[in-house]
Amino acid sequence: MNNSGIFCSAITKIIGYKPKKIILFETAFTHRSLNKTTLTGDALNYERLEFLGDAILGSVIAAFLYKNAPKGDEGYLTQMRSKIVNRAYLNSVGKKLQLIHLVRSKANVANFGDNINGNLLEALIGAIYIDAGFAVCEKFIYKNILIDFKDLGYLENKITSYKSLFIEYCQKNKCTFRFENCEDNGKDPVKHFCIKLYFNDVEIARARATSKKKAEEKAAQRAFFALQKEMQ
Amino acid sequence: MNNSGIFCSAITKIIGYKPKKIILFETAFTHRSLNKTTLTGDALNYERLEFLGDAILGSVIAAFLYKNAPKGDEGYLTQMRSKIVNRAYLNSVGKKLQLIHLVRSKANVANFGDNINGNLLEALIGAIYIDAGFAVCEKFIYKNILIDFKDLGYLENKITSYKSLFIEYCQKNKCTFRFENCEDNGKDPVKHFCIKLYFNDVEIARARATSKKKAEEKAAQRAFFALQKEMQ
Repeated sequence: MNNSGIFCSAITKIIGYKPKKIILFETAFTHRSLNKTTLTGDALNYERLEFLGDAILGSVIAAFLYKNAPKGDEGYLTQMRSKIVNRAYLNSVGKKLQLIHLVRSKANVANFGDNINGNLLEALIGAIYIDAGFAVCEKFIYKNILIDFKDLGYLENKITSYKSLFIEYCQKNKCTFRFENCEDNGKDPVKHFCIKLYFNDVEIARARATSKKKAEEKAAQRAFFALQKEMQ
Repeated sequence: MNNSGIFCSAITKIIGYKPKKIILFETAFTHRSLNKTTLTGDALNYERLEFLGDAILGSVIAAFLYKNAPKGDEGYLTQMRSKIVNRAYLNSVGKKLQLIHLVRSKANVANFGDNINGNLLEALIGAIYIDAGFAVCEKFIYKNILIDFKDLGYLENKITSYKSLFIEYCQKNKCTFRFENCEDNGKDPVKHFCIKLYFNDVEIARARATSKKKAEEKAAQRAFFALQKEMQ
């Protein structure tokens, strides 16, 4: 089997049917570093399909919640959706499907960071929608994403941001806090950010991650558990 | 024809087919002030359908832009979508369809403000999706909303926020500005907000509207035109 045959059978296995327009899926796995274009000069990479997939995913999840949480009001539905359409979770689904192995890129895939997994998943969803329509796309989303959320009760109790929880705690208890950048000495090929978190002017936690936001969240989570332990 | 017969035929005319589950459309036009619930105690008003319709609308527009702007990158598509899914525009479509005449409410409809028109439109879209599926819903959105956006070039040049345009102008030209609340003396039954806009410490415009945000936008638009006139 040649390269394109291998690609087509890998896609068929992931999406559960033989794609009609393989070019859509090739686009869904083409990184912009390749600078590929169509004959008429349109950019050919996954970013446009990612935009589309993100929107389709949002509506399928909205419909799922509408049907499965008849007692939830608009605020509840919005909150639950943002818990499902969560970067970390979409990244984990993309990883489980091993999408990164199909990427065509000039840049080194190892340097992309974690979000590439979720981005490819969204682009794939966009490609399925254009290739086979809404119903097939919805089925793919149910099978690969919504299957984990049958138990909405569990999701209700899931904490989405330790940073906001930590800040809330400080405000309630009139404690001061500040996040501070510090130099990262790690030897990773991917750039990392290091954050020190001070609680009442004492360093309570430190964390590093591939973005400032993630490092802050990680530090806040550590601080939150440290405080919990102290209170016991 | 009795009341429910009149309602059903009004809906049929708007959506272009005879609804299968009229209860969905009754819900889409029920305001929460009625405190209606189902037999099992679930709230029965348009807010949940509005959440759903908003998501479906977002994905139909994303797909429309993906197909109609093959040269637009992700940033362009995002920007164009926010120009279409614009409160003022959705309100105007809701008004054109005269949705407000179908509302069932305990509160006085005249006091609702403009956004009720767009909210009802979104709830109606949610009801069509549940009643008849994605394809029928998409057709409704094309016929009533996207028909106005065949010319994407026109949309590209549309200014969406005079406030940001005005602020940009001030920053570029090192001018100061400030928005100030002032007392509203209008006799409207609906609460209005009044905003004074100062440019280099001189009042350049004043506006009133049903929200602070809208009043600021209106004042910025007036200021922008005043400045344009001055520069000519």
